[in-house]
Amino acid sequence: MKTWAHRKADGRRLLLYGTTAYVLPPLAEGPSITENLSHLRWHPLRMEWVAYAAGRQERAFLPPAEFCPLCPTRPGGPPTEIPFEDFEVAVFENRFPAFADQPGPLPEIPGETAQAAGACEVVVYTPEHTGSLGTLAQERRELLVRVWAQRYRELCEREGVRFVMPFENRGEAVGVTLHHPHGQIYAYPFVPPVLQAEVAAFRRGPVLQNLLAQVGSRYIVEEDDAAAVIVPPFARFPYEVWVVPKRAQPGPWTFEDAEVTAVARTLGRVVSRYDALFARPFPYVMVLHAAPKGEEAHFHFHVEFYPVMRGADRLKYLAGTELGAGTYTVDVLPEDAARALRQVEP
Amino acid sequence: MKTWAHRKADGRRLLLYGTTAYVLPPLAEGPSITENLSHLRWHPLRMEWVAYAAGRQERAFLPPAEFCPLCPTRPGGPPTEIPFEDFEVAVFENRFPAFADQPGPLPEIPGETAQAAGACEVVVYTPEHTGSLGTLAQERRELLVRVWAQRYRELCEREGVRFVMPFENRGEAVGVTLHHPHGQIYAYPFVPPVLQAEVAAFRRGPVLQNLLAQVGSRYIVEEDDAAAVIVPPFARFPYEVWVVPKRAQPGPWTFEDAEVTAVARTLGRVVSRYDALFARPFPYVMVLHAAPKGEEAHFHFHVEFYPVMRGADRLKYLAGTELGAGTYTVDVLPEDAARALRQVEP
Repeated sequence: MKTWAHRKADGRRLLLYGTTAYVLPPLAEGPSITENLSHLRWHPLRMEWVAYAAGRQERAFLPPAEFCPLCPTRPGGPPTEIPFEDFEVAVFENRFPAFADQPGPLPEIPGETAQAAGACEVVVYTPEHTGSLGTLAQERRELLVRVWAQRYRELCEREGVRFVMPFENRGEAVGVTLHHPHGQIYAYPFVPPVLQAEVAAFRRGPVLQNLLAQVGSRYIVEEDDAAAVIVPPFARFPYEVWVVPKRAQPGPWTFEDAEVTAVARTLGRVVSRYDALFARPFPYVMVLHAAPKGEEAHFHFHVEFYPVMRGADRLKYLAGTELGAGTYTVDVLPEDAARALRQVEP
Repeated sequence: MKTWAHRKADGRRLLLYGTTAYVLPPLAEGPSITENLSHLRWHPLRMEWVAYAAGRQERAFLPPAEFCPLCPTRPGGPPTEIPFEDFEVAVFENRFPAFADQPGPLPEIPGETAQAAGACEVVVYTPEHTGSLGTLAQERRELLVRVWAQRYRELCEREGVRFVMPFENRGEAVGVTLHHPHGQIYAYPFVPPVLQAEVAAFRRGPVLQNLLAQVGSRYIVEEDDAAAVIVPPFARFPYEVWVVPKRAQPGPWTFEDAEVTAVARTLGRVVSRYDALFARPFPYVMVLHAAPKGEEAHFHFHVEFYPVMRGADRLKYLAGTELGAGTYTVDVLPEDAARALRQVEP
């Protein structure tokens, strides 16, 4: 994998990753960064940090394709976030970060605050404006997995970073404001609540190894020697899917080639199955769950997809019991979801 | 408060609550209950119960007003859920409950399961098809607070119930399928994750008493001797509002009259302020946080509103960081939200 590092005019880092080295010179730059006001406030009842990122309200909201900030810059065209004519995978620092190298000043408020140290990066999967993880070439998906591995390594090395999480929000139903195929990476200065629970679970036992051993064909969407795609029997979302490498790896940075290939391939096939399920682009949140720093010994990396469709024309909403109590109700049985996903052609 | 208990034709309980006794005979009944398949499955990584309620997919979805199942039944008209010509507040068991007196059989699946013992009730605030907590008469809102108190008492007495939670989902943006003013009550056979955190926080100290003492006028939307309406300085949602009785009560069942009046009044005024804020009905999830059974000594009852608007025409979506990590990002500062809500006329 070749890397090309660039410093944008407003100081943000941009990295181009490719199978071949990048050679063209940078073009004109886009809008400059606004003042960073991000900070953390402690929620004393839920006992968790809340991240504030004022200024995000100004971010681009579903611009027309010719003004897409994630496309390559065309010579003579409007500047985009990526001042290059072409690229394979591009990563740059978010213009409106919740976490940053140089977070905002701490506000004077009642209660505990902390610096929102960390990073928020945008990962652009392709220079093509349309498409999805499902339609990308397998070679590009494998490059993406290697980019994630590299970002994990680099961000985890930063002082103060405790957890790194690549994810993808897809579809307007989950609030996506740009359609160009892309994901994000957050680097947190604390271990977030969900990861605290997962760390505690993995310390007690090999939860995912046990699950893979018990789960049986009823819950398996597909599998090969390196990875399984399952609907967990305890799914919290209708059509929730997990991609689980069979060996317990802490994260993509320890993958062997077979795991890079299998994870890249199955992620693409999950998205293709989703799109085939209701014959429409399927909105989801995809989250990579890797070990927080220092928890590599017991953790079992996996990818979770949270769909927000519970039928061809029905969305799943989080409401009273999910938001108020933290208990999810589900009306699609995992057994039925796994069968439906097995039966569609990826 | 007068109560009239009725057993529906399909066996479900219906209760009418009023300031005067109910006297008219019941009318023809609506559709009968379908088989209850609800059950719990243990999520071994997040270490929480997930509630399954297959069958809910069939529930009524935004029917036209003349087929509203929450209106009183008109003599000669189509049967509704409430076979009476008139009522003040009606409570009945949900037709598609996630938790029930007689939950479904346990499925044969890999992993731990449990009976979804408990209750899911619908609370109809008024026989009028339109309106909101904001437009209800104060007398009716006070009746509603007394109904909640009575439901807490009755449901908490049931064997196996550990926590009772009245809530209201409002607006299609949070998945509401019926517009008639109503809320719900869930009775859980376990203490849900959010309440576990709150119990732990209140055991360590009087978190809300401290907050009320520190919070200052910047965060107060309004207050009187009995209750304060605040935007918490650590809000997780834009325009999040809490209604907090000044005395630490475990729940509405210990309210004095002044607290019934103050909570009823301020809940109505919060909703009126919300509707005035962007000059449109404001979608929200409202959740009553009372003490789980056995935790009455330290708990401080309060009501939390989670709005899903972050601007006049923008929804707040939960996505990667919220769903995957459990860490919320917010782009409206609580100080600004409190000022905006103070400035609108309720």
